[in-house]
Amino acid sequence: MPTLRLALCQVNPSVGDLTGNAGLVRAWTRRAAASGAQLVLFPEMMLTGYPVEDLVFRRSFVAASQAALGRLAADLAADGLGELPVVVGYLDADGPPQVSADAEPGRGARNAAALLHRGDVVATYFKHHLPNYGVFDEDRYFVPGDMLTVVRLGGVDVALTICEDLWQAGGPFAAARRAGVGLVVNINGSPYELNKDDLRMPLVRRRAAEAGATIAYVNMIGGQDELVFEGDSMIVAADGTVLTRAPQFVTHLLVHDVDLPAADAGVGDGEETADGLRVVRRTVDGIPPSPTGPAATGGLIEPVADEAEVWQALVLGLRDYVEKNRFPSVVLGLSGGIDSAVVAAIAVDALGGDRVVGVSLPSQHSSEHSRSDAADLAKRTGLDYRVEPIQPMVDTFLANLSLSGVAVENLQARVRGVILMALSNQEGHLVLTTGNKSELAVGYSTLYGDSVGGFNPIKDVWKTLVWRLAKWRNAEAARLGLTPPIPENSIGKPPSAELSPGQLDSDSLPDYDVLDPILIGYIDGDLGRDGLVADGHDPAVVDKVLRLVDTAEYKRRQSAPGTKISMKAFGRDRRLPITNRWREDG
Amino acid sequence: MPTLRLALCQVNPSVGDLTGNAGLVRAWTRRAAASGAQLVLFPEMMLTGYPVEDLVFRRSFVAASQAALGRLAADLAADGLGELPVVVGYLDADGPPQVSADAEPGRGARNAAALLHRGDVVATYFKHHLPNYGVFDEDRYFVPGDMLTVVRLGGVDVALTICEDLWQAGGPFAAARRAGVGLVVNINGSPYELNKDDLRMPLVRRRAAEAGATIAYVNMIGGQDELVFEGDSMIVAADGTVLTRAPQFVTHLLVHDVDLPAADAGVGDGEETADGLRVVRRTVDGIPPSPTGPAATGGLIEPVADEAEVWQALVLGLRDYVEKNRFPSVVLGLSGGIDSAVVAAIAVDALGGDRVVGVSLPSQHSSEHSRSDAADLAKRTGLDYRVEPIQPMVDTFLANLSLSGVAVENLQARVRGVILMALSNQEGHLVLTTGNKSELAVGYSTLYGDSVGGFNPIKDVWKTLVWRLAKWRNAEAARLGLTPPIPENSIGKPPSAELSPGQLDSDSLPDYDVLDPILIGYIDGDLGRDGLVADGHDPAVVDKVLRLVDTAEYKRRQSAPGTKISMKAFGRDRRLPITNRWREDG
Repeated sequence: MPTLRLALCQVNPSVGDLTGNAGLVRAWTRRAAASGAQLVLFPEMMLTGYPVEDLVFRRSFVAASQAALGRLAADLAADGLGELPVVVGYLDADGPPQVSADAEPGRGARNAAALLHRGDVVATYFKHHLPNYGVFDEDRYFVPGDMLTVVRLGGVDVALTICEDLWQAGGPFAAARRAGVGLVVNINGSPYELNKDDLRMPLVRRRAAEAGATIAYVNMIGGQDELVFEGDSMIVAADGTVLTRAPQFVTHLLVHDVDLPAADAGVGDGEETADGLRVVRRTVDGIPPSPTGPAATGGLIEPVADEAEVWQALVLGLRDYVEKNRFPSVVLGLSGGIDSAVVAAIAVDALGGDRVVGVSLPSQHSSEHSRSDAADLAKRTGLDYRVEPIQPMVDTFLANLSLSGVAVENLQARVRGVILMALSNQEGHLVLTTGNKSELAVGYSTLYGDSVGGFNPIKDVWKTLVWRLAKWRNAEAARLGLTPPIPENSIGKPPSAELSPGQLDSDSLPDYDVLDPILIGYIDGDLGRDGLVADGHDPAVVDKVLRLVDTAEYKRRQSAPGTKISMKAFGRDRRLPITNRWREDG
Repeated sequence: MPTLRLALCQVNPSVGDLTGNAGLVRAWTRRAAASGAQLVLFPEMMLTGYPVEDLVFRRSFVAASQAALGRLAADLAADGLGELPVVVGYLDADGPPQVSADAEPGRGARNAAALLHRGDVVATYFKHHLPNYGVFDEDRYFVPGDMLTVVRLGGVDVALTICEDLWQAGGPFAAARRAGVGLVVNINGSPYELNKDDLRMPLVRRRAAEAGATIAYVNMIGGQDELVFEGDSMIVAADGTVLTRAPQFVTHLLVHDVDLPAADAGVGDGEETADGLRVVRRTVDGIPPSPTGPAATGGLIEPVADEAEVWQALVLGLRDYVEKNRFPSVVLGLSGGIDSAVVAAIAVDALGGDRVVGVSLPSQHSSEHSRSDAADLAKRTGLDYRVEPIQPMVDTFLANLSLSGVAVENLQARVRGVILMALSNQEGHLVLTTGNKSELAVGYSTLYGDSVGGFNPIKDVWKTLVWRLAKWRNAEAARLGLTPPIPENSIGKPPSAELSPGQLDSDSLPDYDVLDPILIGYIDGDLGRDGLVADGHDPAVVDKVLRLVDTAEYKRRQSAPGTKISMKAFGRDRRLPITNRWREDG
C-alpha cells in the first residue's frame, strides 16, 4: 500500500494581493519540501484571496489572476520545487461573467483548483456545488464545473474538490467512489461560525465513507471584512478515523503520512460517472510511492471551548481588518461599561496596548465609576488612555438649538462620535464602534453617535455572550498568572447608556437574559411571533421586541462591518428591506 | 377570431402589506370590471410587494401570503367579481427555504402567479428563469418552475409567465409557441434603469415573434428602498406591433381589446415540450369570445426624454420611501450648491414645499452666495427655510481639541450633520443627504458629516447629470409658465465644499466632464486601467481616479440608500470587498 506525505498549508492570503499570495505559496511550498512532503495543498482561491466578490466581473483582475497562476508554476520550478506537486485555488474564466438580455447571464468565471508540477499546470478542477445562501453569492459569480479531476501520483488516484462540494450530497464525492480514487483533496475558504467545527468534522467523516477514500481538508485562516476563517484543517481516513487535525485561527503547516490504496483502473479518462460528471484523468510522474526518512505525523488538536474560540475569532478578525487595510492604530470610546471594555481587551490582544487609544468622554450624566472603571481598564491593558469631556460642546449645541428628550440624549452620543472621528482624522487611528448584537437588533444605539466607527468587533456577539467572554478572558488571564484585563466593576454593573439621569438599559428593554433568547429565535432561527410564543416567551414581550427589530433595519443598513461568528450575522447573511410593512403581530 | 378585453393594472403595492395589497387588487378589479374587461392582470409578487428579500425565509410570512391569496379569491367573489379571471403574483412555497449541510440548500419557495376565478385559485405558474445578477438574488430564494401553465378562456389559450422569463431565451416563451397559445401574459417587478425601456420594448417584440403570440406585459410602479418601478406596461401583437403602452411612473389602468387566434389542440395537458417544461392546461368557463359595448383602446404613450424620465424616477423613489415609511416630512442642509438645490427641488416635487425643511448651515468659510442662493431656492420652491450658523459649535470643538487640516474641514461637516440629526430627533423629519454618484465614487465627502441622512435621492446620479437635470427642470417650469425652482447661480457656480478658504472641487478632483466618463467606464462598465486608457483617458488621471474609488469603499458601505437609476448603482448592484489589495495600476 503506497504512503503519501501530505502537507496541508493553513495560510492567510489577502483578497486582491496576487503577488503576495503567490509569495506565500512559494514560501510554504519550500517549507513543505523541507519536511519531505510529496503533495502540497493550499486553500480555495489561494491566489486571489476569498471572497473576491464583484472583482470577478473585472476583466483586468481575471486576466491578472490567470497570468499569476502560470507565473507561479514557473517560479516554483525556478525555486527548485518543480518536482513537488502543488494544489492551489485560483480564479479561472472562459471570459468574465456578462449579464445580458437573451443570455443566461453568461457567467464564464470558475472557482478553480490547479495542480502545478514541473513548471506547468498539470490539472485543473472547477467547483461543482456553488453555495448561494447565507453570505455566499456564488451563483452570481461562477459556472459550476461538470468534471471530476483525478490525478495519479505516487501510485495513488487523487481527486480534487472545493469547499461546498463537501457540504452537499452527490456530485464529486459520490463520483470519486465510482472513479475508485484513494484520496479526495478538499480545499476551502470556509468562514467561521460558532459550532461549525462540530458540524464540519462529522461531515468530513461521512463524506469519507461515501467516497470510500481518505479526505485531506485544508482551510485558510484570517479575517476578510466580516468573515473570519479558522483553519481547522484535517485528514480523515476512509473508515472515518481522524488522522490529524490542525489548530484553529493560526497559520499552520500540517504534515502527515497517509497510507492509501494503490490506484486501479476505475472509470476511464473522458468517461461519465453515474452523477453526470466527466472524469478527467491526469498523471504526475516522479513521485515515489512512499516518503523518505522518519514518519511524519501532524498530531491531533482538540477544539477549544466556545468562549476561547469566539475570542480568537474576534481577535483575528480585528487584527486582519487593521493590518490588511494598513491602519497604524485604533481608537475607541471607553464608557466604563462591558461592551467597550471587551472591545478594548480584544483590540489589545490583537494589536498590543501601544496601538490602542481609549478615550473617556464623560458628560454631566456620567457616573464616577464610568471614569474610574475606564481608567482601571487602561491600567490593566496598557492602552493609551485619554479623557475628553463632552459637556462644553453639548452645552454650545443646546444654547444654539432648542432640543429636548431623545434629541438631547442622542446629541451627547453624537458629540462623542465627532470627537472620535476628529482624533481619527488628526492621528490616523481606525475608530472602533462597540455596539453588541442585541443592541443592533433592537436599535438601542444612536445613529452617527455611538455607532460611529469603521469596524465593530462585537457586532455579531449577543450581550449575554459579551459577559461570558469577559468572564472567560479574565479567568484565562488568572489561570496564566496574568492581569485580568477587564475590571470586575464593568462586568458587574447594570448596563446603562448614561445619556439621562439614572438611566438604565432595563428602563426600556427586557433583561438581556430574556431579550437574547427571543432575538436568537427571531433572527438566527427565522421564527415568527407564534413560534416564539410556542417556545414559551411572553407574547407581550415578543411583540415589543419584534417591533423594535423590524423598525431598526435602517440603522443596521448604515452600521460598521464586524466579524461574523454566528450562523446569521447582520449584513449579507440577513437581507431585509428597510421599507417593510410586514409585522409579526399584524 | 375571438377578441379579449384585457385590463393591465399598473399599481403600486407595498412590501409586506398583504392586506393593503389585496385591497388594491379588489379595488382595481372593480374598476377593470366596470370597463368590461374579460381578463385582469396584476404585477409580479403583487400580494407581498417586491422584492421581499429574506422575508422568504420567515415561515410566518410565507404562510400569511399563501392564506392571503385564498382570502383574496373569496373576497373577489364576495365583491361580485368572481366571474372575472384575475392574474396576481404572490409568494408560494412547498415549505420555506432551508439551508443545511447535505441538502441542496432546500429552497422551497416559489415566485408564483395565480389565476383567480369564482372564488378559487384555478391555475398557478412558478417563475422559470430566476435572475441572480445585478440587484437580484433569486437563486437564494426560489426554486425555478418547470411547467408551462396554459389557461383556456374566451376561446383563447393564455400562457402565464413572470418577469425574467421574458429576459432569457428559451423556456416558457419558446414552449408557448409549441403549445400553440394565442396570448402570453408576463407579470413584472422590473426595476427602472435609464434606457431600460429602450431595451424592453424590442425584447417584448422579439419574444412575441418567438412565441408567435400576443404578449401582455404588466409592470408595477413605485419605490422600494433603492429600487423604483416605472410601469411601462404594454401589449404587443405577435407580428411585433405595439398595440398599446402605458405611461411611466404613474398608476394606470390599461384597458385594450385584443384580437386573438382561437385555441386549437396544441400540446396536451401533462405533456412535455421540447424545452423540458410540462404543460399544465386549465379551463375558465363563462368568458364570452368577445367584449360587449364600444371597443376599448388603451392608447400609445411615447417614452419621455432621459432627464424627464430620471426626474420622475427620483421623485417617485423619494416619495414612496417617505410615505411607505410614514415620515411626516424631510429636512436637508442647503449649501447654495447644485446638489442640495436639486435634491430640494425633487423633495418639493415629491412632497410639497410644506413638508420640506431646508437649513442653511453657514460657517466662516461660507460665501455670501451660499446663503443668498439657498434663500432664493427656498423662495422659489416654498420650502420651510431656516439658518443655523455652525461656527459657535465648531469653535468650541477647536477650543477643546487640537485639530488641523482635514480634521478641521471634516469637523465642520460633522457639526452640520449633528444639527440636522438633532432637528430630525426633535421634529420627526427624515434627513436627506445629497452626495451625487461622482462624489460617492471618489469618496469626496465626510463620513458622518455631509453623508448623514436616511435617504439620498441623487445617490446614483453622476454630477454631470445633476447639472442636466437642474437645467431640464428649470426649462420645464419655464415651458409651463411656472417659476424655475433652481437658482441659476447654483447651476453656474464652480462646485465647492467651502470647508476651507477659497476651496474648489477642482483643487482635488479633475473637472467633472473628465471625471464622470472615467467613473462610468470603471464602475458601470467594469473596465480596468488598460481599457480606460485605450478609450483615450489620460493614464495619470485614470490611476488617480481609480485609487480614489478603490479606497472609498468603506465610506460607501455606510452610505444612505438612494434610488437606483443606472445599470450599476452603488449598493447590492456592486459588491466589492472593503479589504482589497487589488490595484489597477499594480
